[in-house]
Amino acid sequence: MNKFTKEDFNNFQKFYRANFINSLSGFKSANLIGTISKEGKTNLSLFSSAFHLGADPALIGLIQRPTSVRRDTFENLCQTNYLTINHINKDIINKSHLTSARFDQDECEFEKCNLTKEFKDDFIAPFVKESRLQIACSLNEIIDIKANNTKMLILNIESVYLNNDIILENGTIDIEKIESVAISSLDSYHSTTLEKRLKYAKENY
Amino acid sequence: MNKFTKEDFNNFQKFYRANFINSLSGFKSANLIGTISKEGKTNLSLFSSAFHLGADPALIGLIQRPTSVRRDTFENLCQTNYLTINHINKDIINKSHLTSARFDQDECEFEKCNLTKEFKDDFIAPFVKESRLQIACSLNEIIDIKANNTKMLILNIESVYLNNDIILENGTIDIEKIESVAISSLDSYHSTTLEKRLKYAKENY
Repeated sequence: MNKFTKEDFNNFQKFYRANFINSLSGFKSANLIGTISKEGKTNLSLFSSAFHLGADPALIGLIQRPTSVRRDTFENLCQTNYLTINHINKDIINKSHLTSARFDQDECEFEKCNLTKEFKDDFIAPFVKESRLQIACSLNEIIDIKANNTKMLILNIESVYLNNDIILENGTIDIEKIESVAISSLDSYHSTTLEKRLKYAKENY
Repeated sequence: MNKFTKEDFNNFQKFYRANFINSLSGFKSANLIGTISKEGKTNLSLFSSAFHLGADPALIGLIQRPTSVRRDTFENLCQTNYLTINHINKDIINKSHLTSARFDQDECEFEKCNLTKEFKDDFIAPFVKESRLQIACSLNEIIDIKANNTKMLILNIESVYLNNDIILENGTIDIEKIESVAISSLDSYHSTTLEKRLKYAKENY
Protein backbone atom coordinates (compact mmCIF):
# COMPACT_ATOMS: atom_id res chain seq x y z
CA MET A 1 0.00 0.00 0.00
CA ASN A 2 1.04 3.59 -0.52
CA LYS A 3 1.42 5.94 2.42
CA PHE A 4 0.21 9.54 2.57
CA THR A 5 1.14 11.78 5.47
CA LYS A 6 0.02 15.16 6.82
CA GLU A 7 2.78 16.73 4.74
CA ASP A 8 1.29 15.18 1.60
CA PHE A 9 -2.16 16.54 2.54
CA ASN A 10 -0.65 20.02 2.87
CA ASN A 11 0.86 19.76 -0.58
CA PHE A 12 -2.42 18.66 -2.21
CA GLN A 13 -4.33 21.27 -4.22
CA LYS A 14 -7.33 22.53 -2.19
CA PHE A 15 -10.16 20.67 -3.98
CA TYR A 16 -8.05 17.53 -4.41
CA ARG A 17 -7.45 17.56 -0.65
CA ALA A 18 -11.15 18.12 0.10
CA ASN A 19 -12.13 15.14 -2.08
CA PHE A 20 -9.38 12.92 -0.68
CA ILE A 21 -9.95 13.64 3.02
CA ASN A 22 -13.75 13.56 2.65
CA SER A 23 -13.42 9.97 1.38
CA LEU A 24 -11.53 8.63 4.36
CA SER A 25 -14.18 8.06 7.04
CA GLY A 26 -16.19 5.77 4.73
CA PHE A 27 -19.78 5.92 3.53
CA LYS A 28 -21.92 8.79 4.74
CA SER A 29 -25.62 9.47 5.14
CA ALA A 30 -27.43 11.56 2.50
CA ASN A 31 -30.04 13.96 3.81
CA LEU A 32 -31.83 17.15 2.91
CA ILE A 33 -32.25 19.55 5.82
CA GLY A 34 -35.37 21.73 5.72
CA THR A 35 -35.63 24.94 7.73
CA ILE A 36 -37.63 28.16 7.83
CA SER A 37 -36.65 31.65 8.98
CA LYS A 38 -38.72 33.61 11.47
CA GLU A 39 -40.00 35.64 8.50
CA GLY A 40 -41.25 32.43 6.89
CA LYS A 41 -38.55 31.95 4.21
CA THR A 42 -37.83 28.26 3.65
CA ASN A 43 -34.43 26.72 2.95
CA LEU A 44 -33.26 23.29 1.88
CA SER A 45 -29.69 22.09 2.14
CA LEU A 46 -27.80 18.85 1.50
CA PHE A 47 -25.87 17.39 4.45
CA SER A 48 -23.76 14.24 4.38
CA SER A 49 -22.86 14.65 8.05
CA ALA A 50 -25.99 13.51 9.90
CA PHE A 51 -25.05 10.72 12.30
CA HIS A 52 -26.67 8.57 14.96
CA LEU A 53 -25.94 9.86 18.45
CA GLY A 54 -28.22 7.93 20.78
CA ALA A 55 -31.45 5.94 20.98
CA ASP A 56 -32.68 6.87 24.45
CA PRO A 57 -33.19 9.78 24.35
CA ALA A 58 -33.42 9.73 20.55
CA LEU A 59 -30.71 12.05 19.23
CA ILE A 60 -29.08 12.83 15.89
CA GLY A 61 -25.91 14.87 15.35
CA LEU A 62 -25.12 17.15 12.43
CA ILE A 63 -21.87 18.94 11.61
CA GLN A 64 -22.25 22.60 10.69
CA ARG A 65 -19.42 24.09 8.63
CA PRO A 66 -17.87 27.37 9.85
CA THR A 67 -20.43 30.14 10.11
CA SER A 68 -17.96 32.82 9.00
CA VAL A 69 -20.10 33.04 5.85
CA ARG A 70 -23.93 33.03 5.72
CA ARG A 71 -25.37 29.59 6.55
CA ASP A 72 -29.14 29.67 6.12
CA THR A 73 -29.75 26.29 7.77
CA PHE A 74 -27.90 27.33 10.91
CA GLU A 75 -29.44 30.81 11.03
CA ASN A 76 -32.94 29.41 10.64
CA LEU A 77 -32.38 26.72 13.27
CA CYS A 78 -31.19 29.36 15.74
CA GLN A 79 -34.25 31.51 14.96
CA THR A 80 -36.92 28.80 15.19
CA ASN A 81 -35.33 25.87 17.08
CA TYR A 82 -36.54 23.30 14.51
CA LEU A 83 -35.45 21.52 11.35
CA THR A 84 -36.37 18.46 9.30
CA ILE A 85 -34.10 15.66 8.09
CA ASN A 86 -35.21 13.96 4.87
CA HIS A 87 -33.51 10.87 3.38
CA ILE A 88 -32.31 11.32 -0.19
CA ASN A 89 -33.40 8.43 -2.41
CA LYS A 90 -32.22 7.26 -5.83
CA ASP A 91 -34.93 9.22 -7.65
CA ILE A 92 -33.90 12.63 -6.32
CA ILE A 93 -30.10 12.50 -6.39
CA ASN A 94 -29.65 15.23 -9.00
CA LYS A 95 -32.22 17.59 -7.50
CA SER A 96 -30.74 17.06 -4.03
CA HIS A 97 -27.17 17.65 -5.20
CA LEU A 98 -28.28 20.91 -6.81
CA THR A 99 -29.38 22.30 -3.41
CA SER A 100 -25.68 22.68 -2.63
CA ALA A 101 -25.28 25.28 -5.40
CA ARG A 102 -24.98 28.90 -4.32
CA PHE A 103 -28.40 30.56 -4.54
CA ASP A 104 -29.30 34.09 -3.53
CA GLN A 105 -30.77 34.47 -0.08
CA ASP A 106 -34.19 35.36 -1.53
CA GLU A 107 -34.27 32.26 -3.74
CA CYS A 108 -35.64 29.04 -2.28
CA GLU A 109 -33.92 25.73 -3.00
CA PHE A 110 -37.28 23.94 -3.04
CA GLU A 111 -38.39 25.83 -6.13
CA LYS A 112 -34.99 26.16 -7.78
CA CYS A 113 -34.34 22.41 -7.42
CA ASN A 114 -37.89 21.28 -8.17
CA LEU A 115 -38.49 19.57 -4.84
CA THR A 116 -41.85 19.79 -3.07
CA LYS A 117 -42.26 21.59 0.23
CA GLU A 118 -44.55 19.81 2.66
CA PHE A 119 -45.86 21.14 5.98
CA LYS A 120 -47.59 18.78 8.35
CA ASP A 121 -48.98 18.34 11.85
CA ASP A 122 -48.22 21.94 12.86
CA PHE A 123 -44.45 21.37 12.63
CA ILE A 124 -42.91 24.70 11.66
CA ALA A 125 -40.07 23.49 9.36
CA PRO A 126 -40.77 22.13 5.87
CA PHE A 127 -40.39 18.46 4.91
CA VAL A 128 -39.43 17.18 1.45
CA LYS A 129 -42.46 15.41 -0.02
CA GLU A 130 -40.32 13.22 -2.32
CA SER A 131 -38.44 11.79 0.67
CA ARG A 132 -39.61 8.43 2.06
CA LEU A 133 -38.17 8.88 5.55
CA GLN A 134 -38.71 12.25 7.18
CA ILE A 135 -37.63 13.30 10.67
CA ALA A 136 -38.80 16.30 12.69
CA CYS A 137 -36.09 17.60 15.06
CA SER A 138 -35.64 20.27 17.69
CA LEU A 139 -32.35 21.79 18.79
CA ASN A 140 -30.82 20.32 21.95
CA GLU A 141 -27.35 21.90 22.00
CA ILE A 142 -24.75 23.60 19.81
CA ILE A 143 -21.16 22.56 20.54
CA ASP A 144 -18.23 24.55 19.16
CA ILE A 145 -15.40 22.46 17.77
CA LYS A 146 -12.25 24.48 18.30
CA ALA A 147 -10.08 22.32 16.06
CA ASN A 148 -11.61 23.70 12.87
CA ASN A 149 -14.29 26.18 13.81
CA THR A 150 -17.17 23.85 12.90
CA LYS A 151 -20.10 23.17 15.21
CA MET A 152 -21.83 20.00 16.23
CA LEU A 153 -25.60 20.40 16.31
CA ILE A 154 -27.27 18.01 18.72
CA LEU A 155 -30.87 17.41 17.73
CA ASN A 156 -33.77 15.79 19.54
CA ILE A 157 -35.82 13.48 17.32
CA GLU A 158 -39.39 14.68 17.83
CA SER A 159 -41.19 12.47 15.31
CA VAL A 160 -40.58 10.29 12.28
CA TYR A 161 -42.62 9.65 9.13
CA LEU A 162 -42.24 6.44 7.15
CA ASN A 163 -44.33 3.55 5.88
CA ASN A 164 -44.92 0.76 8.39
CA ASP A 165 -44.02 -1.88 5.82
CA ILE A 166 -40.30 -0.96 5.92
CA ILE A 167 -40.00 -1.70 9.64
CA LEU A 168 -38.61 -5.17 10.30
CA GLU A 169 -39.69 -7.35 13.18
CA ASN A 170 -36.74 -6.30 15.39
CA GLY A 171 -37.30 -2.57 14.83
CA THR A 172 -34.63 -2.11 12.14
CA ILE A 173 -35.87 0.13 9.33
CA ASP A 174 -35.14 -1.24 5.86
CA ILE A 175 -33.74 1.97 4.38
CA GLU A 176 -32.52 0.03 1.35
CA LYS A 177 -36.13 -0.80 0.43
CA ILE A 178 -36.93 2.92 0.12
CA GLU A 179 -33.76 3.36 -1.95
CA SER A 180 -32.02 5.73 0.44
CA VAL A 181 -28.54 6.43 -0.90
CA ALA A 182 -25.08 6.66 0.65
CA ILE A 183 -22.51 9.35 -0.17
CA SER A 184 -18.77 8.97 -0.47
CA SER A 185 -16.36 11.87 -0.79
CA LEU A 186 -18.09 15.06 -1.97
CA ASP A 187 -19.40 13.91 -5.31
CA SER A 188 -20.40 10.22 -5.29
CA TYR A 189 -23.88 8.78 -4.68
CA HIS A 190 -24.30 5.03 -4.14
CA SER A 191 -27.24 2.66 -3.94
CA THR A 192 -26.80 -0.35 -1.69
CA THR A 193 -27.24 -4.12 -1.66
CA LEU A 194 -27.73 -5.93 1.63
CA GLU A 195 -24.84 -8.32 2.19
CA LYS A 196 -25.61 -9.55 5.68
CA ARG A 197 -27.93 -8.94 8.59
CA LEU A 198 -26.17 -10.30 11.66
CA LYS A 199 -27.41 -11.18 15.12
CA TYR A 200 -26.13 -9.41 18.22
CA ALA A 201 -22.53 -10.62 18.39
CA LYS A 202 -21.60 -13.36 20.83
CA GLU A 203 -18.32 -15.19 21.02
CA ASN A 204 -18.27 -18.34 18.82
CA TYR A 205 -21.58 -17.56 17.13
CA MET B 1 -46.89 7.61 5.72
CA ASN B 2 -47.13 6.53 9.33
CA LYS B 3 -46.05 8.84 12.12
CA PHE B 4 -44.03 7.85 15.17
CA THR B 5 -43.49 10.29 18.03
CA LYS B 6 -41.25 10.51 21.10
CA GLU B 7 -44.05 8.85 23.07
CA ASP B 8 -43.97 5.89 20.68
CA PHE B 9 -40.18 5.64 21.08
CA ASN B 10 -40.64 5.49 24.86
CA ASN B 11 -43.11 2.65 24.51
CA PHE B 12 -40.82 0.59 22.27
CA GLN B 13 -39.02 -2.37 23.84
CA LYS B 14 -35.34 -1.46 24.45
CA PHE B 15 -33.70 -3.40 21.60
CA TYR B 16 -36.54 -2.56 19.18
CA ARG B 17 -35.98 1.13 19.98
CA ALA B 18 -32.20 0.81 19.55
CA ASN B 19 -32.64 -0.79 16.11
CA PHE B 20 -35.31 1.71 15.04
CA ILE B 21 -33.52 4.90 16.13
CA ASN B 22 -30.14 3.65 14.88
CA SER B 23 -31.68 3.36 11.40
CA LEU B 24 -32.85 6.95 11.15
CA SER B 25 -29.76 8.97 10.27
CA GLY B 26 -29.14 6.84 7.14
CA PHE B 27 -26.13 4.80 6.05
CA LYS B 28 -23.09 4.78 8.31
CA SER B 29 -19.40 4.11 7.92
CA ALA B 30 -18.00 0.72 8.94
CA ASN B 31 -14.61 0.76 10.64
CA LEU B 32 -12.47 -1.27 12.99
CA ILE B 33 -10.64 0.82 15.58
CA GLY B 34 -7.27 -0.53 16.69
CA THR B 35 -5.66 0.55 19.96
CA ILE B 36 -3.00 -0.57 22.42
CA SER B 37 -2.73 -0.08 26.19
CA LYS B 38 0.39 1.34 27.82
CA GLU B 39 1.18 -2.25 28.88
CA GLY B 40 1.08 -3.30 25.23
CA LYS B 41 -2.31 -5.08 25.16
CA THR B 42 -4.03 -4.58 21.81
CA ASN B 43 -7.74 -4.07 21.25
CA LEU B 44 -9.98 -4.00 18.19
CA SER B 45 -13.49 -2.62 18.15
CA LEU B 46 -16.21 -2.03 15.55
CA PHE B 47 -17.47 1.55 15.22
CA SER B 48 -20.20 2.75 12.85
CA SER B 49 -19.85 6.32 14.07
CA ALA B 50 -16.68 7.58 12.37
CA PHE B 51 -17.51 10.70 10.39
CA HIS B 52 -15.74 13.32 8.32
CA LEU B 53 -15.07 16.48 10.29
CA GLY B 54 -12.76 18.57 8.17
CA ALA B 55 -10.19 18.46 5.38
CA ASP B 56 -7.80 21.22 6.44
CA PRO B 57 -6.66 20.32 9.03
CA ALA B 58 -7.58 16.70 8.30
CA LEU B 59 -9.92 15.57 11.08
CA ILE B 60 -12.23 12.63 11.77
CA GLY B 61 -14.84 12.41 14.53
CA LEU B 62 -15.88 9.32 16.47
CA ILE B 63 -18.69 8.90 18.99
CA GLN B 64 -17.74 7.08 22.17
CA ARG B 65 -20.60 5.48 24.07
CA PRO B 66 -20.90 6.23 27.81
CA THR B 67 -17.77 5.23 29.71
CA SER B 68 -19.73 4.14 32.78
CA VAL B 69 -18.63 0.61 31.86
CA ARG B 70 -15.15 -0.43 30.72
CA ARG B 71 -14.38 0.81 27.18
CA ASP B 72 -11.00 -0.51 26.08
CA THR B 73 -10.77 1.68 22.98
CA PHE B 74 -11.30 4.85 24.99
CA GLU B 75 -9.01 3.77 27.83
CA ASN B 76 -6.22 2.90 25.42
CA LEU B 77 -6.62 6.13 23.47
CA CYS B 78 -6.35 8.14 26.69
CA GLN B 79 -3.24 6.17 27.69
CA THR B 80 -1.36 6.37 24.41
CA ASN B 81 -2.96 9.22 22.41
CA TYR B 82 -3.21 7.12 19.22
CA LEU B 83 -5.58 4.79 17.36
CA THR B 84 -6.07 3.36 13.89
CA ILE B 85 -9.20 3.42 11.72
CA ASN B 86 -9.52 0.51 9.29
CA HIS B 87 -12.28 0.22 6.64
CA ILE B 88 -14.33 -2.96 6.85
CA ASN B 89 -14.68 -4.63 3.46
CA LYS B 90 -17.05 -7.29 2.16
CA ASP B 91 -14.61 -10.13 2.93
CA ILE B 92 -14.34 -9.42 6.66
CA ILE B 93 -17.92 -8.55 7.64
CA ASN B 94 -18.44 -11.54 9.94
CA LYS B 95 -15.06 -11.27 11.64
CA SER B 96 -15.54 -7.54 12.12
CA HIS B 97 -19.04 -7.92 13.55
CA LEU B 98 -17.71 -10.46 16.04
CA THR B 99 -15.35 -7.84 17.55
CA SER B 100 -18.46 -6.30 19.14
CA ALA B 101 -19.01 -9.42 21.26
CA ARG B 102 -18.10 -9.19 24.93
CA PHE B 103 -14.61 -10.60 25.45
CA ASP B 104 -12.64 -10.68 28.67
CA GLN B 105 -10.16 -7.86 29.15
CA ASP B 106 -7.21 -10.25 28.76
CA GLU B 107 -8.54 -11.64 25.45
CA CYS B 108 -7.61 -9.84 22.25
CA GLU B 109 -10.20 -9.34 19.52
CA PHE B 110 -7.53 -9.75 16.84
CA GLU B 111 -6.96 -13.39 17.81
CA LYS B 112 -10.53 -14.19 18.84
CA CYS B 113 -11.91 -12.83 15.57
CA ASN B 114 -9.13 -14.11 13.34
CA LEU B 115 -8.00 -10.73 12.07
CA THR B 116 -4.32 -9.92 11.57
CA LYS B 117 -2.52 -7.33 13.67
CA GLU B 118 -0.13 -5.16 11.69
CA PHE B 119 2.38 -2.67 13.10
CA LYS B 120 4.12 -0.31 10.73
CA ASP B 121 6.30 2.77 10.46
CA ASP B 122 6.77 3.07 14.23
CA PHE B 123 3.08 3.88 14.78
CA ILE B 124 2.16 2.57 18.22
CA ALA B 125 -1.42 1.37 17.55
CA PRO B 126 -2.12 -1.78 15.51
CA PHE B 127 -3.64 -1.73 12.01
CA VAL B 128 -5.85 -4.47 10.53
CA LYS B 129 -3.91 -6.18 7.75
CA GLU B 130 -7.09 -7.32 5.96
CA SER B 131 -8.30 -3.71 5.62
CA ARG B 132 -7.60 -1.91 2.33
CA LEU B 133 -7.80 1.62 3.75
CA GLN B 134 -6.02 2.26 7.03
CA ILE B 135 -5.73 5.55 8.87
CA ALA B 136 -3.34 6.48 11.67
CA CYS B 137 -4.85 9.06 14.06
CA SER B 138 -3.84 11.02 17.13
CA LEU B 139 -6.19 12.50 19.70
CA ASN B 140 -7.04 16.18 19.26
CA GLU B 141 -9.85 16.69 21.78
CA ILE B 142 -12.49 14.85 23.81
CA ILE B 143 -15.84 16.65 24.00
CA ASP B 144 -18.48 15.59 26.53
CA ILE B 145 -22.01 15.44 25.16
CA LYS B 146 -24.28 16.22 28.06
CA ALA B 147 -27.48 15.13 26.32
CA ASN B 148 -26.67 11.43 26.68
CA ASN B 149 -23.31 11.10 28.37
CA THR B 150 -21.49 10.11 25.19
CA LYS B 151 -18.25 11.73 24.06
CA MET B 152 -17.10 13.03 20.72
CA LEU B 153 -13.50 12.09 20.00
CA ILE B 154 -11.81 14.53 17.63
CA LEU B 155 -8.93 12.86 15.84
CA ASN B 156 -6.09 14.25 13.75
CA ILE B 157 -5.40 12.20 10.63
CA GLU B 158 -1.67 11.56 10.79
CA SER B 159 -1.28 9.27 7.78
CA VAL B 160 -3.26 7.06 5.41
CA TYR B 161 -2.44 3.75 3.72
CA LEU B 162 -4.16 2.72 0.48
CA ASN B 163 -3.28 1.69 -3.05
CA ASN B 164 -2.66 4.56 -5.46
CA ASP B 165 -4.90 2.98 -8.08
CA ILE B 166 -8.09 3.76 -6.12
CA ILE B 167 -7.43 7.52 -6.12
CA LEU B 168 -9.37 9.25 -8.89
CA GLU B 169 -8.04 12.23 -10.80
CA ASN B 170 -9.87 14.77 -8.60
CA GLY B 171 -8.63 13.26 -5.33
CA THR B 172 -11.78 11.24 -4.55
CA ILE B 173 -10.92 7.77 -3.25
CA ASP B 174 -12.95 5.00 -4.87
CA ILE B 175 -13.90 3.19 -1.65
CA GLU B 176 -16.39 1.08 -3.61
CA LYS B 177 -13.53 -0.46 -5.59
CA ILE B 178 -11.97 -1.80 -2.37
CA GLU B 179 -15.42 -3.09 -1.34
CA SER B 180 -15.75 -0.97 1.78
CA VAL B 181 -19.21 -1.58 3.24
CA ALA B 182 -21.89 0.66 4.73
CA ILE B 183 -23.87 -0.12 7.88
CA SER B 184 -27.52 0.58 8.59
CA SER B 185 -29.14 0.17 11.97
CA LEU B 186 -27.13 -2.09 14.28
CA ASP B 187 -27.18 -5.28 12.28
CA SER B 188 -27.11 -4.64 8.53
CA TYR B 189 -24.07 -4.57 6.23
CA HIS B 190 -24.41 -3.30 2.67
CA SER B 191 -22.20 -3.26 -0.39
CA THR B 192 -22.67 -0.32 -2.76
CA THR B 193 -23.16 0.47 -6.43
CA LEU B 194 -22.16 3.87 -7.76
CA GLU B 195 -25.24 5.66 -9.09
CA LYS B 196 -23.80 9.05 -9.92
CA ARG B 197 -20.65 11.08 -9.56
CA LEU B 198 -21.70 14.71 -9.85
CA LYS B 199 -19.76 17.88 -10.48
CA TYR B 200 -19.60 20.71 -7.94
CA ALA B 201 -23.17 22.01 -8.00
CA LYS B 202 -23.96 25.16 -9.92
CA GLU B 203 -27.38 26.56 -10.67
CA ASN B 204 -28.84 25.24 -13.95
CA TYR B 205 -26.12 22.65 -14.47
